[in-house]
Amino acid sequence: MIPRPKTNASVSPKGSLETLSQREVQQLRETGSGSVYRLFRQCALAILNTGSHSDNAKTILEAYPDFEVRIHQQDRGIRLELLNAPADAFVDGEMIASTREMLFSALRDIVYTQSELENKRVDLDSSEGITDYVFHLLRNARTLRSGLEPKMVVCWGGHSISTDEYKYTKKVGHELGLRGLDICTGCGPGVMKGPMKGATISHAKQRIHHGRYLGLTEPGIIAAEAPNPIVNELVILPDIEKRLEAFVRVGHGIIVFPGGAGTAEEFLYLLGILTHPDNRDLPFPVVLTGPKSAGQYLQQLHAFIGATLGEEAQRRYTMILNDPSEVAREMAKGIKAVTRFRREHNDAFHFNWMMKIDEGFQRPFEPTHANMASLRLGRDLPLHELAANLRRAFSGIVAGNVKENGIRLIEEHGPYEIAGDKAVMQPLDELLRAFVSQHRMKLPGGSAYEPCYRLRA
Amino acid sequence: MIPRPKTNASVSPKGSLETLSQREVQQLRETGSGSVYRLFRQCALAILNTGSHSDNAKTILEAYPDFEVRIHQQDRGIRLELLNAPADAFVDGEMIASTREMLFSALRDIVYTQSELENKRVDLDSSEGITDYVFHLLRNARTLRSGLEPKMVVCWGGHSISTDEYKYTKKVGHELGLRGLDICTGCGPGVMKGPMKGATISHAKQRIHHGRYLGLTEPGIIAAEAPNPIVNELVILPDIEKRLEAFVRVGHGIIVFPGGAGTAEEFLYLLGILTHPDNRDLPFPVVLTGPKSAGQYLQQLHAFIGATLGEEAQRRYTMILNDPSEVAREMAKGIKAVTRFRREHNDAFHFNWMMKIDEGFQRPFEPTHANMASLRLGRDLPLHELAANLRRAFSGIVAGNVKENGIRLIEEHGPYEIAGDKAVMQPLDELLRAFVSQHRMKLPGGSAYEPCYRLRA
Amino acid sequence: MIPRPKTNASVSPKGSLETLSQREVQQLRETGSGSVYRLFRQCALAILNTGSHSDNAKTILEAYPDFEVRIHQQDRGIRLELLNAPADAFVDGEMIASTREMLFSALRDIVYTQSELENKRVDLDSSEGITDYVFHLLRNARTLRSGLEPKMVVCWGGHSISTDEYKYTKKVGHELGLRGLDICTGCGPGVMKGPMKGATISHAKQRIHHGRYLGLTEPGIIAAEAPNPIVNELVILPDIEKRLEAFVRVGHGIIVFPGGAGTAEEFLYLLGILTHPDNRDLPFPVVLTGPKSAGQYLQQLHAFIGATLGEEAQRRYTMILNDPSEVAREMAKGIKAVTRFRREHNDAFHFNWMMKIDEGFQRPFEPTHANMASLRLGRDLPLHELAANLRRAFSGIVAGNVKENGIRLIEEHGPYEIAGDKAVMQPLDELLRAFVSQHRMKLPGGSAYEPCYRLRA
Amino acid sequence: MIPRPKTNASVSPKGSLETLSQREVQQLRETGSGSVYRLFRQCALAILNTGSHSDNAKTILEAYPDFEVRIHQQDRGIRLELLNAPADAFVDGEMIASTREMLFSALRDIVYTQSELENKRVDLDSSEGITDYVFHLLRNARTLRSGLEPKMVVCWGGHSISTDEYKYTKKVGHELGLRGLDICTGCGPGVMKGPMKGATISHAKQRIHHGRYLGLTEPGIIAAEAPNPIVNELVILPDIEKRLEAFVRVGHGIIVFPGGAGTAEEFLYLLGILTHPDNRDLPFPVVLTGPKSAGQYLQQLHAFIGATLGEEAQRRYTMILNDPSEVAREMAKGIKAVTRFRREHNDAFHFNWMMKIDEGFQRPFEPTHANMASLRLGRDLPLHELAANLRRAFSGIVAGNVKENGIRLIEEHGPYEIAGDKAVMQPLDELLRAFVSQHRMKLPGGSAYEPCYRLRA
Repeated sequence: MIPRPKTNASVSPKGSLETLSQREVQQLRETGSGSVYRLFRQCALAILNTGSHSDNAKTILEAYPDFEVRIHQQDRGIRLELLNAPADAFVDGEMIASTREMLFSALRDIVYTQSELENKRVDLDSSEGITDYVFHLLRNARTLRSGLEPKMVVCWGGHSISTDEYKYTKKVGHELGLRGLDICTGCGPGVMKGPMKGATISHAKQRIHHGRYLGLTEPGIIAAEAPNPIVNELVILPDIEKRLEAFVRVGHGIIVFPGGAGTAEEFLYLLGILTHPDNRDLPFPVVLTGPKSAGQYLQQLHAFIGATLGEEAQRRYTMILNDPSEVAREMAKGIKAVTRFRREHNDAFHFNWMMKIDEGFQRPFEPTHANMASLRLGRDLPLHELAANLRRAFSGIVAGNVKENGIRLIEEHGPYEIAGDKAVMQPLDELLRAFVSQHRMKLPGGSAYEPCYRLRA
Repeated sequence: MIPRPKTNASVSPKGSLETLSQREVQQLRETGSGSVYRLFRQCALAILNTGSHSDNAKTILEAYPDFEVRIHQQDRGIRLELLNAPADAFVDGEMIASTREMLFSALRDIVYTQSELENKRVDLDSSEGITDYVFHLLRNARTLRSGLEPKMVVCWGGHSISTDEYKYTKKVGHELGLRGLDICTGCGPGVMKGPMKGATISHAKQRIHHGRYLGLTEPGIIAAEAPNPIVNELVILPDIEKRLEAFVRVGHGIIVFPGGAGTAEEFLYLLGILTHPDNRDLPFPVVLTGPKSAGQYLQQLHAFIGATLGEEAQRRYTMILNDPSEVAREMAKGIKAVTRFRREHNDAFHFNWMMKIDEGFQRPFEPTHANMASLRLGRDLPLHELAANLRRAFSGIVAGNVKENGIRLIEEHGPYEIAGDKAVMQPLDELLRAFVSQHRMKLPGGSAYEPCYRLRA
Repeated sequence: MIPRPKTNASVSPKGSLETLSQREVQQLRETGSGSVYRLFRQCALAILNTGSHSDNAKTILEAYPDFEVRIHQQDRGIRLELLNAPADAFVDGEMIASTREMLFSALRDIVYTQSELENKRVDLDSSEGITDYVFHLLRNARTLRSGLEPKMVVCWGGHSISTDEYKYTKKVGHELGLRGLDICTGCGPGVMKGPMKGATISHAKQRIHHGRYLGLTEPGIIAAEAPNPIVNELVILPDIEKRLEAFVRVGHGIIVFPGGAGTAEEFLYLLGILTHPDNRDLPFPVVLTGPKSAGQYLQQLHAFIGATLGEEAQRRYTMILNDPSEVAREMAKGIKAVTRFRREHNDAFHFNWMMKIDEGFQRPFEPTHANMASLRLGRDLPLHELAANLRRAFSGIVAGNVKENGIRLIEEHGPYEIAGDKAVMQPLDELLRAFVSQHRMKLPGGSAYEPCYRLRA
Repeated sequence: MIPRPKTNASVSPKGSLETLSQREVQQLRETGSGSVYRLFRQCALAILNTGSHSDNAKTILEAYPDFEVRIHQQDRGIRLELLNAPADAFVDGEMIASTREMLFSALRDIVYTQSELENKRVDLDSSEGITDYVFHLLRNARTLRSGLEPKMVVCWGGHSISTDEYKYTKKVGHELGLRGLDICTGCGPGVMKGPMKGATISHAKQRIHHGRYLGLTEPGIIAAEAPNPIVNELVILPDIEKRLEAFVRVGHGIIVFPGGAGTAEEFLYLLGILTHPDNRDLPFPVVLTGPKSAGQYLQQLHAFIGATLGEEAQRRYTMILNDPSEVAREMAKGIKAVTRFRREHNDAFHFNWMMKIDEGFQRPFEPTHANMASLRLGRDLPLHELAANLRRAFSGIVAGNVKENGIRLIEEHGPYEIAGDKAVMQPLDELLRAFVSQHRMKLPGGSAYEPCYRLRA
């Protein structure tokens, strides 16, 4: 491996970390040497690596083994000292403004999370408590702004997609931006970057100087999916379930682009929530879309939803093939309905309090073989429960494919056994096969895909 | 008593209370019915009474016996409903913007204080803990702003002074504003209003659009000294000691105008701190000033300081008679030295971390007869301890003069006995006599002043 | 005379004079030595004298006989060098921001006027041409701003009034500012300052950071009535008629406070325009008001209007005695009607294009004995013509009282002869006598008033 | 030809056309029907066509034969009514903000030019007069802003270049934007768009919200090179010479990318000015650059400069091959020197007054056969005169290639004869042959290039 250029630097924060008490600075410094240090170091490295392409977490971490970040106390606040940092984060010795911002966003979120947990101010035992926690994390990050009309469009999809699909997401982003809409994604590359890039250009055309490009991530994936540099608001949620909840509470509509098992997981999460009886009358625009080349993929996903969750679930989204401006129009129209609804119900524009999220969707699912095997997958289940279990199945597959502990489990015990009614298992089997044949399953090494699951009807 | 015009209204917040979680709204509503309600109602009434003259707390409270404030929950935030509120706070049915702001500042501070105390996040057992608490209260009120050059001048003095003295404070404020300086006071009438009014005009002349007029108050006096409407930042500290600490940590210099026992208490507090050995090299400009007509008063106060605390204490302030522009120049020069010092020592501009405040000054002094009698007042004490005890003596006199519980104690047990060395007691006696003869002792009823103390050498 | 403190200084412009071509700088420098220099020097001196009280033009000019202002060329723009300038315009050696602004406003207006006239771009032969010229002068001064709702209230009245009347104008200004209204005056002391001062305080209360305090003056009076320092937009119109037109085209309503012959002239000008048949349906709120002590004055003026111009003219204004908030409410209500009307007729908010101003009101009236003697003053004339002639009569009286050339004419030829129908002359006589007895006639020396006119029925 | 989608619309201005006098509105309306209408219609059509690719002027004009633009008077200002306008300029029926801005910029510039010329305020007979005219046009367009540090980088090059070259210009723009630099181009596609697009992204990364993308064009080419939509300041200069002067006076440095005869013309114009003895000590960074694939082209151009204008001319620019960040660093360094120089010489940052431009470069060159034949092209000429004549030769070739009147002349009289010393003619011949073989000569039809010139040594 060619050694990468490295540099040392010292940076001071802007924004919420500007006025700290002496005690808080002390806490931060302890962070620098304590148990959360590894976490912060990893996030920092991912952020400094912003813009470098196609890296996975392991590669980045390995490329900068001697990277260090030290937190220094100053009476006025704090200062970060970076040793052996990726040189790409700097221009002529000065750190790029967006990188600096994100670095301190990471520090802010990790410290806040830590301090809330330590002080036991968080109630993770109730659904309301979890929602409250997500709210506080977002507010602390200054993401919740009163007085703004609804216009935040969440874009979901794969981080590693074809050039054709990437270009399509840029076009959709461009059309969204032309209509004054903002973008929220998982903040990495691929579908997480394309719409932001497109909107940056169209916001410029529409003379919108303060367009928002919100990236929601979590420590487990930030390294694999380094935030793209267009993100101008970065929030690191503590885990995948909080992040998913943040997406649906902060977004005013969602577009699902092509992706792999991860995208399927997100889509099922969303449909599971929207089909909950309490949410029946809640307007929330969802569009499933892709370029012409992704036509077959979209059809298959749509058919899978129909075969498992039925028409009711299908009615909660619109499928649009290869028509960026139609996607944007549909989204704009849907968000108008959201605005009207929130106004009528006196609900906040900045946080979707009225959306019901079952605790089942809020609690982490641990993909052990036992848990996977005992998932109930039958059409006799209430719609949103089947959706919840299907999401868990995909969550397990993602883990088995790419996450450290999932891979280890598969190595030890062989593939997961997933069982269920034939009416569900057959469409699932077909969808998974299609993902494999379309190369949408992430292959850690790059070799032929060896499924981490075995389906049984 | 002529019945005062009253009105009903409903107002929504701007600022820090804009994005609340459902749980926080719930807490606020409970405030509306719980134990802190009386406190909030009293502060709200004082604020709504802003601008009406010469009212004391009791009069205000009595004038609006059926005033009520209700906190309503809205999904988007909160709304206050006011019943039988003073009509003067409204213009053609709409609440004056500054009043609305202050109303929600009061709610913010009372709720924050309450919530911090309930959650036991405050460490009131150590000096550092108390300072930290003051810091958090001020930061939560958005009073601490990084990036601003030092320019906050604290003005102390009586709330009930002669027209001549009032005009003088306006002139000094005008000269301070001409030099770009901001004003912080106790936020009531008299010396607390004059400098702000003068600076408003001179800030306009200097095209300074965001001059700061910071008012620091506490629940015990806000009713007696209703915030004047020029105040554009209002913070309600929980008690007199926190408020005094806030003054000296947030101000970059202090001007002492004529006043009564309360002003003497503040001046002694300040000198007690500045003469602490740890603060010897800390630059902090203090000016004692007044118009020509206050010449005798200033001389007497100065002589008293000399006779009790000596030349060392006198060296920590400059006395300037009847020269507003010289006062402003001296203050501007002193603040430049503060700026230089903070920069060199890398200390925050917005909070004076380096100033040592002895716990003796931070802890409340309860003016019982026993406590008053056992105060040690001798020149053998270290300077700052004598100052601390003298401050306590004046604090007791203020309580015995005007505070509810102090008056009650005097009624029950007769005047306080204050004893000490002759070298201290004689000048004290002279000063107090002068206060009486100059009508600087507040007379609750307006009748001849009956001292609440008896001095003994 | 005690010599006044003087200082030398060098200042650079902010605003419209920032980007000049080399040719324009050259023109400006020539101004410095050419024929308009005297004019500019005189205006500059008046502006630098801002805030000093009770000076008349002659006194100021005589107090600084060696004051000089030099215009220096810099490639980047211009720089003014001031020699022997009034020291009061500076704070610790630095010029007060508002003074600096006004200095360059004067330069801008004088140079612009000069250059437009020299380049023959002005058509002063037609009514439309004159209006166009006024428009361009105001636009060049950046006074016309699109997108602002109507809220500019013109306040007219004497520059030398009683303390009681002055305080009343402050209260009215305060009430106007509470309702978000801006103030426009002739920019000197007295009625020209009071409302601005009151509004400064109430704008602060209402958190209005960019209240407008527009001063319209002309070279002939700026020296006598130095702009008060609250004025944050100063425009120097070339003569009294352009200034009067600017008032009625840029204001959205007018308040007439007590004053002398000059105020009467303004009031008659206004009524002459409003009673023109073309303006019959044009909403334009006018309020005649004063404190209790001015009750008799107001009644007399009102009666005079009734006796000469009749009820029709009286219907164009509302008289309100001693009720500042009622004045402000009436004005706010009237301006709402103006807004509605402009919107319906698609007229600009920033310039009252639709108001018809007869050429008779636009052309300067030269107060020679012959012109005064031949004024037709009879009730047989159309209303607006009688108003025009009455205005001319007052204009002549003002000149005969205080203006240099008027005084000279009176010295040479004795008092003006003013003749007319008894029905007009008798009320006029009474009004003038009242002005004299109430000391509203300006006395240059301070001695007993010797009328400059002789009335004949 | 497929009929293009069309739409009708009505738009109002923002910016400098907001406050117009009634007379100005009248003038504008007359524009709508008078002699300048054709010009405005053509520019408007080009602007509305913004973003559509590869159109030449004729195609656009032919595609919308029934396009009409009508100027309507409103008391408040003006309104444009568009009939049969290109539908691409609208999003869901609303005109894109940048397009609307540019439309009114065109109106502003055309009307201003017209009015200045009609009122004979322009002195086109002297070099100073022409420069003054350019200054006024730019100032009227609010392009000259005092108080900004020098950072405007002009990018020149072809509008029709290879994908590889286009991507390279984006990368260079990206690196310039990372260093906080702004972009100025001829405002069309190709090299005129790439750097702006790159800088938009990097300005976003650096949190620069008000990056400037200045487009300078002229009526003759705006139709062929429709402004790209990123341009946020558009100025239409009256002819090619004024436009070239605007480039060098408003830019703080220039980058020359690959292009054809037009780019050669620009480069020779620049070198002709920089080699003028008066400009010898004037710092002005110039970089000649391109991607690896353009290496041969750059070498040839460089060699041609060396062979004709010699090393002195070569010393005025730096050639950098395929290194975007080095280009940006060089430019940033050069602009620092410019800043220092301007500050020392007290010259404006916003307009390069000190640069000497010979009248020969300011006066239009008419490419008749006689003028072309009589161009003196010998090494005996002073450097800047040879440069001027070489520029004229290229200007003629551009006209003969693509401009309407040039093509007609060639059709009538055959190719231009260009004669000169062998030392000049041989390198010229080689350069032109290379342009042809590299397809850098614009071919109106797309057929094989038939030279419009004949060289003779």
